[in-house]
Amino acid sequence: MSEKTEKEQKKKDAKKGELGGKAEKVINLCLRRGILFPTGEIYGSFAGFFDYGPVGVEMERNLEAAWWNHFVHSREDVVGIDGAIITHPTVWKASGHCDAFNDPLVECRKCKSRFRADQLIEDELKISVDGITLKQLDELIKEHKLVCPKCRSELSSSKVFNLMFKTHIGAVEDDSSLAFLRPETAQLIFVDFKTAQFVSRKQLPFGIAQIGKSFRNEIAPRNFVFRSREFSQMELEFFIHPTKVNNCPFLNKHVLETKINVCTAEMQAKGGMGEVVEMSVKELVEKNIVKTKWHAYWIVESLNWFHSLGIHPENLRIREHLKEELSHYSSETWDVEYNYPWGWKELEGIANRGDFDLKQHAKFSGKDLSYFDAEKGERVTPIVIEPSWGLERTLFTLLLDAFEEKVENGKAKLVLRLHPTIAPVRVGVFPLMKKDGLAEKAREVCESLKKEFACEYDEAGSIGKRYARMDEIGTPYCVTIDYDSLEKNTLTLRERDSAKQVVLPVKALKETLQKLFSGSISFSEAGKPVT
Amino acid sequence: MSEKTEKEQKKKDAKKGELGGKAEKVINLCLRRGILFPTGEIYGSFAGFFDYGPVGVEMERNLEAAWWNHFVHSREDVVGIDGAIITHPTVWKASGHCDAFNDPLVECRKCKSRFRADQLIEDELKISVDGITLKQLDELIKEHKLVCPKCRSELSSSKVFNLMFKTHIGAVEDDSSLAFLRPETAQLIFVDFKTAQFVSRKQLPFGIAQIGKSFRNEIAPRNFVFRSREFSQMELEFFIHPTKVNNCPFLNKHVLETKINVCTAEMQAKGGMGEVVEMSVKELVEKNIVKTKWHAYWIVESLNWFHSLGIHPENLRIREHLKEELSHYSSETWDVEYNYPWGWKELEGIANRGDFDLKQHAKFSGKDLSYFDAEKGERVTPIVIEPSWGLERTLFTLLLDAFEEKVENGKAKLVLRLHPTIAPVRVGVFPLMKKDGLAEKAREVCESLKKEFACEYDEAGSIGKRYARMDEIGTPYCVTIDYDSLEKNTLTLRERDSAKQVVLPVKALKETLQKLFSGSISFSEAGKPVT
Repeated sequence: MSEKTEKEQKKKDAKKGELGGKAEKVINLCLRRGILFPTGEIYGSFAGFFDYGPVGVEMERNLEAAWWNHFVHSREDVVGIDGAIITHPTVWKASGHCDAFNDPLVECRKCKSRFRADQLIEDELKISVDGITLKQLDELIKEHKLVCPKCRSELSSSKVFNLMFKTHIGAVEDDSSLAFLRPETAQLIFVDFKTAQFVSRKQLPFGIAQIGKSFRNEIAPRNFVFRSREFSQMELEFFIHPTKVNNCPFLNKHVLETKINVCTAEMQAKGGMGEVVEMSVKELVEKNIVKTKWHAYWIVESLNWFHSLGIHPENLRIREHLKEELSHYSSETWDVEYNYPWGWKELEGIANRGDFDLKQHAKFSGKDLSYFDAEKGERVTPIVIEPSWGLERTLFTLLLDAFEEKVENGKAKLVLRLHPTIAPVRVGVFPLMKKDGLAEKAREVCESLKKEFACEYDEAGSIGKRYARMDEIGTPYCVTIDYDSLEKNTLTLRERDSAKQVVLPVKALKETLQKLFSGSISFSEAGKPVT
Repeated sequence: MSEKTEKEQKKKDAKKGELGGKAEKVINLCLRRGILFPTGEIYGSFAGFFDYGPVGVEMERNLEAAWWNHFVHSREDVVGIDGAIITHPTVWKASGHCDAFNDPLVECRKCKSRFRADQLIEDELKISVDGITLKQLDELIKEHKLVCPKCRSELSSSKVFNLMFKTHIGAVEDDSSLAFLRPETAQLIFVDFKTAQFVSRKQLPFGIAQIGKSFRNEIAPRNFVFRSREFSQMELEFFIHPTKVNNCPFLNKHVLETKINVCTAEMQAKGGMGEVVEMSVKELVEKNIVKTKWHAYWIVESLNWFHSLGIHPENLRIREHLKEELSHYSSETWDVEYNYPWGWKELEGIANRGDFDLKQHAKFSGKDLSYFDAEKGERVTPIVIEPSWGLERTLFTLLLDAFEEKVENGKAKLVLRLHPTIAPVRVGVFPLMKKDGLAEKAREVCESLKKEFACEYDEAGSIGKRYARMDEIGTPYCVTIDYDSLEKNTLTLRERDSAKQVVLPVKALKETLQKLFSGSISFSEAGKPVT
């Protein structure tokens, strides 16, 4: 299928629902199983804020832990922090967010509905307006006679709308008490750079990581958790000596040979947003497509992490930001994009923030935020590469990528082929029946596994129904205790992805599961196949 | 020492600093090692908001994980959620927070400084004014001629000040867009009760747990992280059939025999806040001192958890709230109190919230939030017992309880006898020297442990200094690689608490550490003692 027809097909699919058929099904699953759902639903709609339910919170915690393990604990060159959501308000003056963190807003002159001017134009005219001015937006609205999508009345001219949520500290509500909910976690890292460096005694290059909530007062939150007003970020600021941005020890032969799906700015200029070519990391750095080696390294490392969580590599590409798209702090940004049912869109951003933030905070605070290079005996301001993830977007993408629907006997059957690291339940344990001591035996087995793996005991409904419930939340393995378990002390182990079953001794279960999760044996080696 | 002289001694100690000598030292440690410190410090003071640094964030994550493991994962009757910080504003009308979540505020007529009237009176007059009216506060101020502590001018009369931070959703700032930052996580659980119950298929009694940030616009934040404006809560709402509040299967003979330090409302009326007597759980429930058995159970379970983290049991007591102290939603509250350098104060609250919250939300939303009792075929509104912790307060208390200062050769030496579960680093790994391949060997050992335990490699400064650095952040064990390691493949293992050392083979290290952490061997069994 050509790029163009593929796009058209996707648009058709998308008509089935706002985000396309598959995405709608995953959203339905999220709502039905209480993974993620709109907050305060009993009080009606409240757009842009979500709660995690019992299944979702375990996925969220697993994803956080997987990220922290990969990017902090398993590395000697990264430490963590956890900064406040409400911090000193001058932080946002220095960072540029007070001045530059805006969206263009238009209002309907009649019904007073508010819209993002750029989104409205993109939706109506199907063109990209990234980086154009308010005046140009107004001209487009006038030229194409765009009206309010709700009541078809005239629209106001575009105004600047700052996306930071405001609040007031203390009893008086005036300018002196004004504060903001952080729109990104990154600034806390910059503000704490000196302290974190001093107490951790890390030398350049090193990184500071953080997971936490951020808030953006989106004019039009939409696409489920993709553009919400409250969300979690997982961010890493990696600080590099300014003369050593190409001095990256991790770009070895093996890494350089890695092949990546790429969409450069040049390709976009020529052929549009949908283009993809495969390139090696070597090509990317040698042809100066990615301008610094450390930037290339963090791109590869990000992709590696996604692969380690089981995302299909063919659904990932990296795309260079066009000049007019770049944030005010960035000289170069590459997005890791996922091939969503509604097209390639950002999953993660990897920006070169240069020395912008540290210099701004040094200027506004009057404090020295430079780093002392003991070798050369001079103070330098590090260059920063920032890989930045939205937690909910990452989680939703993992669900989407793992989602599969089969029709069996005329019934839709859902399987979430989620990586065991993210799965909210790793082992389901069922008694075949509640009676004859099977329930007690199954509970005993469940208890024996609990310390090692997240387990869930389930005795309700037919075995088939219990498998189905586990399949759709991504439980990799299920154990069934039957009459043989009482007589021969064996059990049946079922693999989610193949739906195959093997029989093994109860006493071998824990070790077998450990081996399966570590990948040291395949499922067929786990026991005697059930035919 | 009698209660009274003990109190006086503490007041004397407290004069050394706002919170007493030991607390000040722990705060200094927090600041010096970057555990917890004021946010945005480079921009000057911004009271009531804190950041965790590299060491602190690991303690925070460990504490969260320990809580979640104990109260969610290891139980079949508790599930988790993670709700939004900004939720539907009607939630706070229903919960009573819009009307009743207030502090009394007085203002200096001259310098315009603002104070909490009750705190000001308590500080100046050394009396407790819990639960008295605004009018009574004003009368006390008048009677005792209290003035502004800053400029000694006249104070205004007391006003009601609501502690919720306000913000506006969307582009217009009016009443229709007004929203609040949650002042407690609990309400998200009540609002999600039906969804969480439905998707988890739990039957009464069961609990819903949550960890997350809450915000309170304190008039006068103080005492380091004890009264801050942004903090994390760990809350559990346990839902019980209204006719079965005394039907608790966990109150077995062993639990009933447990002895607890108690301060009842009656004791407070007679002898003051400092009284403590030891009682068994049996006494507490049989004499109806704690009114319901499930309440008694959650008190014991909370204490058990603190004990499992190594808090000295003699520093804990439970204290009953006086009638006038009770929150608007509570019929009975017991605090777990810690014996701080400044006296017994709340560490955790355990409230009986009755059916207040579910009924309020049912009333305000018009939705049925009752539970269907299949056995009796009727709908009931559950009774709720709520154990609620502040994460930062718990962490600070753990640090305080674990803190010890010794003077060795005229130098102060700090040891944090932190439980290994909370310790930010579990194993420190040092080469005796950097040269002769010792550093490489030590790094190799560190790598081999990393997957299992949080490790830190350190080669800077003398071995003594490295031990000291590890001791003060609570690292339970340190490994030193010396010349014997190269020749005989042995290493030296040092225990933080005894400062004793043993020699063991490198290849036995991982298993030895596992045994030490699980408590299956003592340190003297870990190797050959170094004399």
